[in-house]
Amino acid sequence: MIKVVILGAGNVAIHLAKAFQNASGVKIVQRYNQSERNNSEFDPLIPFTKDLKKLDVADVYILSITDDAVADFSKKLKFKNGVVAHTSGSLSIDALQCKARKGVFYPLQTFTKEKKIDFKNIPICLETKNNDDLLLLKDLAGSISDKVYELNSQQREKLHIAAVFANNFSNHMFKIAYDLCESNQINFDILKPLILETAKKIENISPEMAQTGPAKRKDKKTIQKHLSQLEGIQKEIYILVTKSITETYSHGKEL
Amino acid sequence: MIKVVILGAGNVAIHLAKAFQNASGVKIVQRYNQSERNNSEFDPLIPFTKDLKKLDVADVYILSITDDAVADFSKKLKFKNGVVAHTSGSLSIDALQCKARKGVFYPLQTFTKEKKIDFKNIPICLETKNNDDLLLLKDLAGSISDKVYELNSQQREKLHIAAVFANNFSNHMFKIAYDLCESNQINFDILKPLILETAKKIENISPEMAQTGPAKRKDKKTIQKHLSQLEGIQKEIYILVTKSITETYSHGKEL
Repeated sequence: MIKVVILGAGNVAIHLAKAFQNASGVKIVQRYNQSERNNSEFDPLIPFTKDLKKLDVADVYILSITDDAVADFSKKLKFKNGVVAHTSGSLSIDALQCKARKGVFYPLQTFTKEKKIDFKNIPICLETKNNDDLLLLKDLAGSISDKVYELNSQQREKLHIAAVFANNFSNHMFKIAYDLCESNQINFDILKPLILETAKKIENISPEMAQTGPAKRKDKKTIQKHLSQLEGIQKEIYILVTKSITETYSHGKEL
Repeated sequence: MIKVVILGAGNVAIHLAKAFQNASGVKIVQRYNQSERNNSEFDPLIPFTKDLKKLDVADVYILSITDDAVADFSKKLKFKNGVVAHTSGSLSIDALQCKARKGVFYPLQTFTKEKKIDFKNIPICLETKNNDDLLLLKDLAGSISDKVYELNSQQREKLHIAAVFANNFSNHMFKIAYDLCESNQINFDILKPLILETAKKIENISPEMAQTGPAKRKDKKTIQKHLSQLEGIQKEIYILVTKSITETYSHGKEL
């Protein structure tokens, strides 16, 4: 039985707590947060404390707080046993300044409080300072997810940047599409199957193989027609991304 | 029974032919193409001709050829009965210069020859010059899809631009993420569940509600950290899309 203490009460903490409670071989022995925020989102049977001095003994302390607070907060953790693992994609393992052993337990997903999450398919990226701790975190991650990866801090940082493009920026492309629809009285639902197919496609083929559209086929006439109907930052984005696609697929051919 | 002639032999023609053959109330009476290209992709039982003078009589002539060829090719269609409908997202209905009545039958999807398509969920956008023709095309579209919309040429043009953002550009964001993974020995599979979730999310909530990430929360520290690790056009895109997200969600607040 892996004993876990969860520190923090944000979206990731909420979803991890739910997942661990449904997992076998794992017991959440305690939760800590500096306030009662989001307490109703957690099982009331999990003992809760606001006093760091009263933390229970555990094998793993999941530290799920905002990136900026990790360094200072971890300094306050004076105990020496167990692994303290932060859940941040962009922080190094050495951002932790606790006395205990250090780890990273980073679930790569976009969490919304309201939406139920099936952890089985959420990749969890682990990092530790030694092999025993890696095995421990692998057991813990494996209890809730089928997709457990080991990444060092540098890789995780790059992965986080990649995730910004793959998730945040692609969602912003959807937002621009939404705005274009709205300002022309077009039902955005028309685009939803296309968006879903765009994501599903790359389950099986690479984004390079999946690329289509006027920029890919260097269809200057269509590109010009589109540009004449765009303005402001939408137009700037169209120009820059078109340039990037054109360069990506030119492979030495004349533009 | 709606009689259909399919002109052209590209991806859209191939997929439409398959869908119509499985539909009830529709019969493909003939196919035309200027060459035997892709003939093996079509049911050999559909009569095929390369001679425009030998076109059969039909209710609807689906003209599925490249945008640039539509005007000139449609001039060659001398018959006066039936509706000639092009399948282009970016062409006006008046790009057609045939003698027969004009229509648009635009299935909004990213078609790959290899991938099987379930037309039931593919939106088909229709335009005609009169109501009878609209009802005819609605019947035809409704025989293969549950999602039939009426859009005028201007709306369809805007929708096409929106689709470039929603599909082509978001796929390019996936490509950049792929490249970042590859150059750092990170398995791109780690990102696939996130990408799928990004698309699934907006089935139920708006892209605006779904937006997360450093740009949305104006996390300058993370943005700077990311920028210091990017270069070239990837960096330019990061800067511009971040600026666009920040502006979108500032709503008059100080940046």
